[in-house]
Amino acid sequence: MPDPYKPDPGHAGGGMEKPMRQVEIVAPVWRKLRAERPLIQNVTNFVVMNLTANALLAVGASPAMVHAPEEAGEFVRLASALVVNIGTIDATFAEGMRRAAGGAREAGIPWLLDPVGVGATQLRRDITKELLAFKPAIIRGNASEIMALAGEAAASKGVDSGESSESALRAAHALHEATGAVVAITGLVDHIISQDGVASVEGGHPLSQSVTGTGCMASALVGACLAVAPPPLAALAGLTLMKGAAEQAARDAEGPGSFAVRLIDALALLSDART
Amino acid sequence: MPDPYKPDPGHAGGGMEKPMRQVEIVAPVWRKLRAERPLIQNVTNFVVMNLTANALLAVGASPAMVHAPEEAGEFVRLASALVVNIGTIDATFAEGMRRAAGGAREAGIPWLLDPVGVGATQLRRDITKELLAFKPAIIRGNASEIMALAGEAAASKGVDSGESSESALRAAHALHEATGAVVAITGLVDHIISQDGVASVEGGHPLSQSVTGTGCMASALVGACLAVAPPPLAALAGLTLMKGAAEQAARDAEGPGSFAVRLIDALALLSDART
Amino acid sequence: MPDPYKPDPGHAGGGMEKPMRQVEIVAPVWRKLRAERPLIQNVTNFVVMNLTANALLAVGASPAMVHAPEEAGEFVRLASALVVNIGTIDATFAEGMRRAAGGAREAGIPWLLDPVGVGATQLRRDITKELLAFKPAIIRGNASEIMALAGEAAASKGVDSGESSESALRAAHALHEATGAVVAITGLVDHIISQDGVASVEGGHPLSQSVTGTGCMASALVGACLAVAPPPLAALAGLTLMKGAAEQAARDAEGPGSFAVRLIDALALLSDART
Repeated sequence: MPDPYKPDPGHAGGGMEKPMRQVEIVAPVWRKLRAERPLIQNVTNFVVMNLTANALLAVGASPAMVHAPEEAGEFVRLASALVVNIGTIDATFAEGMRRAAGGAREAGIPWLLDPVGVGATQLRRDITKELLAFKPAIIRGNASEIMALAGEAAASKGVDSGESSESALRAAHALHEATGAVVAITGLVDHIISQDGVASVEGGHPLSQSVTGTGCMASALVGACLAVAPPPLAALAGLTLMKGAAEQAARDAEGPGSFAVRLIDALALLSDART
Repeated sequence: MPDPYKPDPGHAGGGMEKPMRQVEIVAPVWRKLRAERPLIQNVTNFVVMNLTANALLAVGASPAMVHAPEEAGEFVRLASALVVNIGTIDATFAEGMRRAAGGAREAGIPWLLDPVGVGATQLRRDITKELLAFKPAIIRGNASEIMALAGEAAASKGVDSGESSESALRAAHALHEATGAVVAITGLVDHIISQDGVASVEGGHPLSQSVTGTGCMASALVGACLAVAPPPLAALAGLTLMKGAAEQAARDAEGPGSFAVRLIDALALLSDART
Repeated sequence: MPDPYKPDPGHAGGGMEKPMRQVEIVAPVWRKLRAERPLIQNVTNFVVMNLTANALLAVGASPAMVHAPEEAGEFVRLASALVVNIGTIDATFAEGMRRAAGGAREAGIPWLLDPVGVGATQLRRDITKELLAFKPAIIRGNASEIMALAGEAAASKGVDSGESSESALRAAHALHEATGAVVAITGLVDHIISQDGVASVEGGHPLSQSVTGTGCMASALVGACLAVAPPPLAALAGLTLMKGAAEQAARDAEGPGSFAVRLIDALALLSDART
C-alpha cells in the first residue's frame, strides 16, 4: 500500500509537514483501536447504519447498532463508547437517545453527539438541547450545524452545510465554553476546538461531499477513538483517518459509487498499515 | 467518458434516433438540477434510503431523508420537491407521509408517489388511497402496482411485477384521468402517460432487476427533476437518466453487486457530461 | 467463471473432497431457487435490509422486507418462507415478528430465526423465547448466540462472537432437542445439527468478519433455500453457497469494501453456474 502521508515529490513539501506530524501523533490511537477492538454502540440514522458499521469494522472496532428505548440504556453499559446521531430522528429514537446518553453519563462511558441537520426543525433543536445535558465528550458537525447549535443563524440546505468550516469557529468556541465538550467542525478543512486550543486537519477529497453519510462516518470513527484516547486526541485521530482514507479512495475512483467502496477499503488499509 | 447515446456502430442505427432526441430534450433538466442543487425530501423505505440518497447526490441534488411525523410536514416547506415511497410502511411512517404530502399540497411543492407493492396488503391500499387526495404530480410504479392502484387485478409477487409495462397502459390512462397525475410505468420499456399523450423510454439493462431499489431510485431521480421541470418533462428526464446509467453501468459489471456501484458512478458521469 | 470447488493444485487435495460432494448435494437446491423464484419475507434489521435483499435477488429469490405489525401476518401468507432477524429490534418490530412468525406457523410456512445478539439484553432474551413457541424450522446464530439461546453463559462482545463454533456444539444439540429446529452454528467452520446428525461446512474467508451482516446474509440465504428444500438440506445449501461466495469474493478484493461488493457478484455467479 502506498503511504498517503509520504510527501509526494510532485507537491511542494512544506504543506505535508503538519499532516505527517499528525499521523505520528494519532497512529498509536489507531493501533490501540485494532488491538483492543472496543465495542462501540451507535444510535444512528437509517441512511448510514450499514456504512458506519462497516467503517467501524474496517478500523478494527466492534460496532453495535442498538437504539431501542427498551434496551439502549442497558446495552451502553457493555460498550466502551457511544455515538448518538440524530439524522433520521423520531419520537422513539429520541427516547432511545435519552436512555443511551443518560446511561453513558451514569456509567462514565464517553460519548459523541452528531447533531445532523439541527437547524432544520424544532424536533432536532429540542432533542439536541436535551442531549447536551448528558455531557457529550465530543460534538461533531458541519459548520451550519455547529452554528445552529451555538444559537447563530446559519445558511444550510437540509443536512448539507452552506458555510465554510472557518465561519463556524466563533460558534465552536462558544459551544466548547458552554458545554465543556471538544467541538469538531468538519469541512474542506476540519477544526477541533478543545482546552488545548485549535487543531486543524487538512486533506481529504471533494468526492466525500457526493457520498451520503461521510460526515456520519467521521463521527463514528471519532467515537471509536474515544474508547481508547482522551477526547481531543480521539477527534484528531478519527478525522485524520477519515481525511487520509478519502484521499486514498479518490485515487482510482470512477465516481461517487466506487469512491464509497474504496473508502472502506482505504480505512482498513490505512489503519492496518500503522499497527 | 464514452457517450452512451452515441449510436453504436455494432447496432442498427434506427433504434437510437428516438433516445438521442430524448437526451437533447432532457439534458437541460439535468443541467438545471446540477446548477440549482434543489433540496429533495424523501419519505422512503429502509431498504433504499442509502442508495437513493447517493443517487440524488450523484446527479447534483441535495437529498434529505426526513419522515418523522413530528417534522415531516414542517421540513417539506424547505424542500423543492418531495418523494413518498411506501416500501416499508408502518403506522408511524404512514403518518409522516400524510404530513409531508399534506404540507407539500398546502405549500404548492410538487411531489411524487411510489406505491411499492400496493397490491399486497390492505395497509398499502389504504394509505395510497389517502395519499392520492393530496394530489401527487407524478405516480411511478411497475405494471402490477399501476394496475392495482387503478383497481385492476394484477399478477405480482411481493414487490416484483409479474406483468409487462405495456399490460398496464390502460390502467395508467385510467389513473391519469382519475387523479390528474402524470403516470409513469417502468419496466423493460418505460411509459409516461400525461396530458401530452404517451412518451416511452427504451434502453436500460436487465441487471437492474437484480438490484434492490432500482425502481425506487428511478422515482427519486424523477422526483428530483420535478424540482426544476414540469411533471411530464421531469418524468422523461429522470427515467432517461436511469435507463442510460443502467446501460453504462452494465458494460463492465461482473454481477449485480458491481453493477449497483457502477450505477451510481454512471449517474454522476452521465448527468455531469451534459452540464 | 473459475469453479471455486475445483481442487486447487496448490492445496492438499484431501480437504476438498467433502466440499465437492457437498456442492453436488446442494446444487439442485440452488437450481430450484432460481427456477421457482420463491417470495421470501424478511423481518430483519435496518443494518442489513439492503444487503440481504440484494443477496436474495442475486441467487434468484424474490425478497420482500415486510415487518409492520399492520401487515406482517397478512403478507406472510403470500410468502414461501420467512426469515426473522432480531438485530435492531424494538417493541414495534417485536410485534411484527410475533405476527409474521405466528402467521407462518398457522399457514405452515417454514421460517428461520436469527437471534442476533440474544445474550446482550433482556429484550432480546424475551422476544426469542416468545418466538421459539412459533416453531422455527431453523435457528442460525454464531457460537455466542447459540450458547445464550440454550441457556449457557458465553463470551460475546455485542453482536460479535467471542467463541469458536465448536464450543457451541453441546448447546446446539440441547437447543435442537428442546425445539425440534435444525440448529446452524456459523463461524470459521459451520456446523448444522439436525435429526440426521451433524454436517459441517468448511471454507469461507476471514474478510467475512470485517463486513457487517454476513451472518444475517447467511441466514437469509438459508431461509430462501427453506422455500424449496427440507430444513437440514436448506441449511447445508445456504451455508455452502455463502462459504463458496466468500472464497471467490476474497480473491480480488482490496479490502472489506470491495469484498462486500464482490460477495454479491459471487453469489450470482456461483448459484447461476450450477443452474
